[in-house]
Amino acid sequence: MSQARLVAEYVLSAGSQREAHELADAIAREQTIEVPPGVGSDELQARMLGRIEAVESVGEGRFLAKISFSPEVVGTGLPQILNVAWGNVSLMSGVRLEGLSIPDHVLEELPGPSLGIDGMRALVGAGGRRALFSVAVKPVGRTSQELAELASVFARAGVDVIKDDHGLVDQDPAPFHERVRLVADAVAEANAVSGGHAVYFPNVTGPVDVLDERIDHAAACGCRGIMLCPSIVGLDAMRAVASRRRDLAIMAHPSHAQSAPRRAEGIAPEVLFGTLYRVAGADAAVYVNAEGRFAWPLDTCHAINRNLRRPLGRLRTALPTPAGGVNAADAARWLDTYGPDTMLLIGGSLLARDDVLAATHAVVEAAHATVDRQAEGGPSDE
Amino acid sequence: MSQARLVAEYVLSAGSQREAHELADAIAREQTIEVPPGVGSDELQARMLGRIEAVESVGEGRFLAKISFSPEVVGTGLPQILNVAWGNVSLMSGVRLEGLSIPDHVLEELPGPSLGIDGMRALVGAGGRRALFSVAVKPVGRTSQELAELASVFARAGVDVIKDDHGLVDQDPAPFHERVRLVADAVAEANAVSGGHAVYFPNVTGPVDVLDERIDHAAACGCRGIMLCPSIVGLDAMRAVASRRRDLAIMAHPSHAQSAPRRAEGIAPEVLFGTLYRVAGADAAVYVNAEGRFAWPLDTCHAINRNLRRPLGRLRTALPTPAGGVNAADAARWLDTYGPDTMLLIGGSLLARDDVLAATHAVVEAAHATVDRQAEGGPSDE
Repeated sequence: MSQARLVAEYVLSAGSQREAHELADAIAREQTIEVPPGVGSDELQARMLGRIEAVESVGEGRFLAKISFSPEVVGTGLPQILNVAWGNVSLMSGVRLEGLSIPDHVLEELPGPSLGIDGMRALVGAGGRRALFSVAVKPVGRTSQELAELASVFARAGVDVIKDDHGLVDQDPAPFHERVRLVADAVAEANAVSGGHAVYFPNVTGPVDVLDERIDHAAACGCRGIMLCPSIVGLDAMRAVASRRRDLAIMAHPSHAQSAPRRAEGIAPEVLFGTLYRVAGADAAVYVNAEGRFAWPLDTCHAINRNLRRPLGRLRTALPTPAGGVNAADAARWLDTYGPDTMLLIGGSLLARDDVLAATHAVVEAAHATVDRQAEGGPSDE
Repeated sequence: MSQARLVAEYVLSAGSQREAHELADAIAREQTIEVPPGVGSDELQARMLGRIEAVESVGEGRFLAKISFSPEVVGTGLPQILNVAWGNVSLMSGVRLEGLSIPDHVLEELPGPSLGIDGMRALVGAGGRRALFSVAVKPVGRTSQELAELASVFARAGVDVIKDDHGLVDQDPAPFHERVRLVADAVAEANAVSGGHAVYFPNVTGPVDVLDERIDHAAACGCRGIMLCPSIVGLDAMRAVASRRRDLAIMAHPSHAQSAPRRAEGIAPEVLFGTLYRVAGADAAVYVNAEGRFAWPLDTCHAINRNLRRPLGRLRTALPTPAGGVNAADAARWLDTYGPDTMLLIGGSLLARDDVLAATHAVVEAAHATVDRQAEGGPSDE
């Protein structure tokens, strides 16, 4: 078979090169035929077993193992990619998924972003190659009317993307259908007055059997995109949404993603948010910014950005969307750090200000200034 | 509001009681209103914020925090339970979900197992209160015909549940529709000859848009149950299947579950496999047995078993299904350890034997003997 193989990179905690090799052997077997040596013909084992491409030391007690998997085992569906690259091995101690190379023939079958970075700029009428700015309406407990009024303030301030907080689902104070209708109308009215192009992405995350109906309601209310939590509804559920509705942008929120830097296990954030969320259709991938409430290191943020922006088969790029305690006063600095192919998401920090409109407008100006700062020889991606 | 609150128990890594309290405060805020103190009225904050019920030391640098969440925030859907109990907090370092109490009014809206332990026994014609025995047809790479022949051997040996390996999806050597038809027919024919009641649970895990069709095909082939990987297709997708098809048993496989004992983060296995898989509809929850390839401690297995078997609203119990490198020679010992409300799952160990039929039959006899051993005053659940 001439098709390329899926390649997964695991960081293994092991006491020696030999121990790391044994662990890599165990993974290559576990993730494919999952039977003891000798079961199945030699031909079958040669054909189906994962192949160890390299095992190398990357630090004290840490080894990087590259294992490739046959197209015959992997097929082209996203669930089986997860099953092969991070299936039973996700239950092992001392194994972390740190890299994933998906072959072109598999990428061909995955939707990727509907709009991509350029399409998101066009959606919000951004002139030039500038950064975008997103805010959240919140908190849960406010009424639909209160949330709509807040959205109106944001739209008048010139925000690009107004999203629901991920904690807003279908609670009594702001039921889904009512909230989406009122907030969408408020944003449209504010745009009509200001001449702006703010868009509203409601949170459609919910039971899988109402997901499509919620998305259709959002579209019927004039929304040009939606927000959902792929790690809650399932990554393949987002892939199905992205395949079905190429007319809508998807903002992917990391709630329940169980991913963080510096762990010995789990999926590395740059793989989950940078690669998997993108191939599954996220136009914007929300992740935890450095220095925020979660204290992620800056190099993780850069690694996520790189994966969202790099060439990947025929798939469009996706917007890195750092969030999670970004202070509005630091907006310009973060946009300098990440460059204009970024959407900064600021939530609570704006709401704590006495004058929300003015505070929001200041960040809008910082986002609009990113092209100029770039032209002055500003930030790199590293 | 008089409805009971959702209670999550987190184990926190912290340097002091005070630091643990601050972290618990941050979680209670993060998982609900997610805005800085002061945003939103006092009334709103009092109503919606998570409430810290207790923070206590449980070891050097480890604290157990119990946080309860308002019914108004949680609602009754499974996605929002995940979002509230293990949403953004899953991205934090040093926080682990170790307990989850779901209130009765929420359990009322969740399907739980269709058959439960008693129903599973009835399904396979098990006389008395004995343990069940399950095997896997595998490996990937074999043809549908070869897998059907293996299933026939298992059925003739008297196995209760024959399942697909989770690595078998829709690959060329054994495409889904062909495999399920041939294996189901082979098991039915073997039953007709032997007078046995073996059932076949095909692996229906796949893209979400073909999931229902695969399940309907399995049912059309006479299957009385199916196997799927809820952590791949999404926990709520399994919940939807369980709600739609109360006539089928569900065996839940832990591939991609990212859960293991002894970690500082993640969902504890007893919560994920013992509680969440059960409420979402698993009749049998496959997990990693002690002493197997993954070396999980025995107390984790007992904790999972307890959660699967304990009273839980109106929901049925589910069968603990230890697996993952269980040696056929140890079957009787494991059944003694776990008791008759258990289904032992043995895969590769049987296939490595020269005489698969005889080796399988020996385990069948051990499972059938569990009632007698129980009557002699055998195992406890601890």
